[in-house]
Amino acid sequence: MIELIVVLKPETTEARVQEITERLEKRGFRVHHSQGEKRTLLGVIGHPEEGLSHSLEAMAEVEKVVPISRPYKLVSREFSPENSVIELNEQLSIGGKQIVVMAGPCAVEGEEQVLESAQEVKKAGAQVLRGGAFKPRTSPYSFQGMKGEGLEMLNRAREETGMLIITEVIDPHNVDKVARYSDILQVGTRNMQNFYLLQELSRIRKPVLLKRGMSATIEEWLMAAEYLMSGGNYQVLLCERGIRTFETYTRNTLDLSAVALAKQLTHLPVVVDPSHGTGRRELISAMSKAAVAAGADGLLLEVHPRPEEAFSDGPQSLTPGDFQQLMDELKGVASSVGRSI
Amino acid sequence: MIELIVVLKPETTEARVQEITERLEKRGFRVHHSQGEKRTLLGVIGHPEEGLSHSLEAMAEVEKVVPISRPYKLVSREFSPENSVIELNEQLSIGGKQIVVMAGPCAVEGEEQVLESAQEVKKAGAQVLRGGAFKPRTSPYSFQGMKGEGLEMLNRAREETGMLIITEVIDPHNVDKVARYSDILQVGTRNMQNFYLLQELSRIRKPVLLKRGMSATIEEWLMAAEYLMSGGNYQVLLCERGIRTFETYTRNTLDLSAVALAKQLTHLPVVVDPSHGTGRRELISAMSKAAVAAGADGLLLEVHPRPEEAFSDGPQSLTPGDFQQLMDELKGVASSVGRSI
Amino acid sequence: MIELIVVLKPETTEARVQEITERLEKRGFRVHHSQGEKRTLLGVIGHPEEGLSHSLEAMAEVEKVVPISRPYKLVSREFSPENSVIELNEQLSIGGKQIVVMAGPCAVEGEEQVLESAQEVKKAGAQVLRGGAFKPRTSPYSFQGMKGEGLEMLNRAREETGMLIITEVIDPHNVDKVARYSDILQVGTRNMQNFYLLQELSRIRKPVLLKRGMSATIEEWLMAAEYLMSGGNYQVLLCERGIRTFETYTRNTLDLSAVALAKQLTHLPVVVDPSHGTGRRELISAMSKAAVAAGADGLLLEVHPRPEEAFSDGPQSLTPGDFQQLMDELKGVASSVGRSI
Amino acid sequence: MIELIVVLKPETTEARVQEITERLEKRGFRVHHSQGEKRTLLGVIGHPEEGLSHSLEAMAEVEKVVPISRPYKLVSREFSPENSVIELNEQLSIGGKQIVVMAGPCAVEGEEQVLESAQEVKKAGAQVLRGGAFKPRTSPYSFQGMKGEGLEMLNRAREETGMLIITEVIDPHNVDKVARYSDILQVGTRNMQNFYLLQELSRIRKPVLLKRGMSATIEEWLMAAEYLMSGGNYQVLLCERGIRTFETYTRNTLDLSAVALAKQLTHLPVVVDPSHGTGRRELISAMSKAAVAAGADGLLLEVHPRPEEAFSDGPQSLTPGDFQQLMDELKGVASSVGRSI
Repeated sequence: MIELIVVLKPETTEARVQEITERLEKRGFRVHHSQGEKRTLLGVIGHPEEGLSHSLEAMAEVEKVVPISRPYKLVSREFSPENSVIELNEQLSIGGKQIVVMAGPCAVEGEEQVLESAQEVKKAGAQVLRGGAFKPRTSPYSFQGMKGEGLEMLNRAREETGMLIITEVIDPHNVDKVARYSDILQVGTRNMQNFYLLQELSRIRKPVLLKRGMSATIEEWLMAAEYLMSGGNYQVLLCERGIRTFETYTRNTLDLSAVALAKQLTHLPVVVDPSHGTGRRELISAMSKAAVAAGADGLLLEVHPRPEEAFSDGPQSLTPGDFQQLMDELKGVASSVGRSI
Repeated sequence: MIELIVVLKPETTEARVQEITERLEKRGFRVHHSQGEKRTLLGVIGHPEEGLSHSLEAMAEVEKVVPISRPYKLVSREFSPENSVIELNEQLSIGGKQIVVMAGPCAVEGEEQVLESAQEVKKAGAQVLRGGAFKPRTSPYSFQGMKGEGLEMLNRAREETGMLIITEVIDPHNVDKVARYSDILQVGTRNMQNFYLLQELSRIRKPVLLKRGMSATIEEWLMAAEYLMSGGNYQVLLCERGIRTFETYTRNTLDLSAVALAKQLTHLPVVVDPSHGTGRRELISAMSKAAVAAGADGLLLEVHPRPEEAFSDGPQSLTPGDFQQLMDELKGVASSVGRSI
Repeated sequence: MIELIVVLKPETTEARVQEITERLEKRGFRVHHSQGEKRTLLGVIGHPEEGLSHSLEAMAEVEKVVPISRPYKLVSREFSPENSVIELNEQLSIGGKQIVVMAGPCAVEGEEQVLESAQEVKKAGAQVLRGGAFKPRTSPYSFQGMKGEGLEMLNRAREETGMLIITEVIDPHNVDKVARYSDILQVGTRNMQNFYLLQELSRIRKPVLLKRGMSATIEEWLMAAEYLMSGGNYQVLLCERGIRTFETYTRNTLDLSAVALAKQLTHLPVVVDPSHGTGRRELISAMSKAAVAAGADGLLLEVHPRPEEAFSDGPQSLTPGDFQQLMDELKGVASSVGRSI
Repeated sequence: MIELIVVLKPETTEARVQEITERLEKRGFRVHHSQGEKRTLLGVIGHPEEGLSHSLEAMAEVEKVVPISRPYKLVSREFSPENSVIELNEQLSIGGKQIVVMAGPCAVEGEEQVLESAQEVKKAGAQVLRGGAFKPRTSPYSFQGMKGEGLEMLNRAREETGMLIITEVIDPHNVDKVARYSDILQVGTRNMQNFYLLQELSRIRKPVLLKRGMSATIEEWLMAAEYLMSGGNYQVLLCERGIRTFETYTRNTLDLSAVALAKQLTHLPVVVDPSHGTGRRELISAMSKAAVAAGADGLLLEVHPRPEEAFSDGPQSLTPGDFQQLMDELKGVASSVGRSI
């Protein structure tokens, strides 16, 4: 299989072409030549090797190196042509016909708030309770989450309501603790390329929801998922949550094409977070419906009993009433694309 | 009404504050002072004036100027709280319950191709035939369209099939001619801020579909629509067609939040172009459904009888078979959000 | 010469490979095959042809098409290995050792303002007077320039001071008139892909300064220059003026790498506009020095006798005093990179 | 001091204005009213409070909230009007007249390579040796660095050559170890918002070089520095290394305006990394000169004895010969802006 094509600059001498070829052959590759009027192309065949593309590009004679095969393996459709359906508990799995709704406050702020949220979102049809105990915040002066105490509050909400829990993990050394208190571990957008954290998460056997980095390409996102799978954790949920663009009217630009693409390139379930993806409450309903129509397997939504009292992300939180109405409206959309919610 | 707030730098002397205030008052504004511990704020009241914000920002004492009111007037919901429903002909209007589908080849390539396309897309349910006679192309060596001859071919397709025609206008001096041959005039993404073209189009009385510039903010897009309306043409359709971001997997990033936002901020119909918005045929079905779910009033789709022979944009063109299937699938999605297609 | 490489999908049958090959051969190309373990690659040899890449990508079997040669010809270093030095008048040329400074107000606002500006910037060492008579503005309610009257004011400033004039042209049908009143015609950022305007400008024999589109890739910018050159106008100046990014602190992000790159990829002079490139007066001095150090052949700077009275772009205009100081400081920087100013 | 301005929607009743006011007053703020024709503005005075802006925006009546004061304190020029000059050892400090050059390979690959690199860059005039022992890599299959062993190799290079060492730290739990082996700790672009890492680094008393996140705004970058300073570590170096934009010709877009801005907004030294900032060897010389002209206090450069054998980032590594020539050329540029190198 040709791994990459090397385009040599027009002025490259035949002697140098020969030298580069021999060098590649010594490293175990086979090389095809294709001589044009001006440029020589080399087709390099063999198993991919660390840094090969880099060391070729570093040569003065090389105009460009074009990779032919894709860098991700285990997450790809070629590895597993069928959709991965990931079991969340005995009753619930994600990646199949059922669209899973994860809802709750951005941050855990107190026992009452968590419990009230859990009851409200459960009543409206959510199956998973979201709530952050550890909050990465732009400012050192902002609320950083209730941490361990917050985990315990989530745990009590789980016991009282029977809901599953999704919560964010930030510190690689805290993975086991967070895993004990939750059913799905969330990797936030700022940590998508925190490779130590990914490595730790690849060793556990719990579902991990991997948010796309706010400026990560789709390929980088899939490579981050590859970290999890290559370390042995196959229970990976991808989550699109908006990318950073020049547009300032919305907090991020929700990239729903990425959902359709990820469903084609990989076998993994894809979740959409319209709350962070837009940052504006008044857009969440339309974007949730669009996400479902685009093929999302799950939604992650911020719902707060009193958004104006939220410690963070109030402007993008739905009230329980809004959420109930949205859930009702989503039923028809889901059904129109052969899904249920 | 306070038009803008001027934040003065901490070190500004009282005498300078006084001078700036008097200057503003001489220009007919009233000025509110708000004295803080460190900074003085001025609230400027009065009718907006050319360059006021600029001349204030140019003063050394000014830290920033914050506009309070929005710069667009006629396109805004405040001007017209109800949706504008624009009549395309006696049978068809856009902006109401019915979602309008405009389909056809990217470029007019010959009489047979246009006619065949028209018949195919009509059969599948499209009401408007798209096809470019004038093609803005990145390379001077690429096909630039069939121009006048292409317009006549579109016209014959209109006569034979009864479909409405949408086609692009590029040259401000060509507006009347294009208007004679078409039912909707399209302003392309590269011309969204071609203000001479907009001014010419504001003088005619035919619907204009205004594509969002590939790096235009939503506000700039609405201001371009304001050019059309302020010149007297109220028949404006907005069209989201993808924005330029760092992601290279798709040709553009289709910004469906912009659709939901434009529906809230303005009273104008909003059309979505998933073909240019993604640049990849395999994403068009999912993105068309998502667009409808997000509230689009119309779809603009590339359909070519033989995409591999298309002179431009083959990779993003649907075959007539794909298109027929998509139209069937869209019915359910439209109905789930209270629309018909 | 191999023009492009076609990567076929793994499952493509030999029969289809054969068919695609024959089809290419019928269009006059030669085709190299390269058979890997999974994928077949085709190397397509022959002269580039309109839409070839598009029609290949539109085939279901094609995974991707990789262009090998660059799409721009006349602007490239391969076409002309030596720097183009463009004569502006008998005394002054650009592209050689001398760095040319073009300065003046953003917009022509009145006879006195233009003349005063001309005298001030001439005194400080500028050789070319800038000033817009036609102003593309985001809002239909903003000042659109003094138009024909403004051109005459520039002309009188030319007569009185002997300075050269650079001014923007917007309307393709106005090229000859603007050319009569100016020494360099400027294409603004919003018109970089106004191909009708480029075609008209390719027919005249006066220097054209082509601003990079605010979201144009370097390749698109060079292709726009190719429009001018392929139409016969070889007097092209490239101008970097900042690109649109997520950063909002500056009006644009000035891309100085693009200057160094354009100097390597092309033989054309490159001018930098730090005024629009940053939008903030306090950054202009640093960015002007950086531009010279990066290899710019010219600077385009906004200078206004009273920035706080400017009708547009006051916040980014230097005062004559600032400008004088900058010119003094630039001498050393220019000299440190073997240039004079 | 007014902290923020709240713009209420036109239709807000007086009773609601009163309620919101009382609510703010209960939380200890003073509130100014400014009644316009349509909208009411509230100026909120008092000490900033966690989540205040969020809870206001979450109210249905609020159109927007405009922050007046800046969120960063300790890093700002207002806190410390003079440049911070940070001592690296008894002979060398950064932030003063002397521009500090940090050079070496991207990754530590072996003892010989490190030592050879150190000797070469020292000979050419670099004062600090760079080299990564821990490498964050997009692919789990790529070389991840020599880790602990790499640190020891850097240490031996320090002992043999007397150079200072800068190296990256990734794991919050590894800070003390990396601090023992290095003189400056580097936070990579992917970790700029790894707040646990920042908190750990705020507790040590060694200089930290904080790379700007590849899609971080300037404000987010300064807030990350605020994490370090608010935790007690005042020895912070900012480092601009290119941002992610739509342009693909360069690996990143080096944002030199950010250098000039950071020098104005903060008192901290600013370093530029043209190697990652461009990703192309042929641009590094021009961008290094531009960085110095723009006011950089230091340069971070990749130099590899044999770039084509580098395990990572070969294409952007200078050879020792290139580096020597660059250092010679930089002397003039530095001197032209009143600095030495």
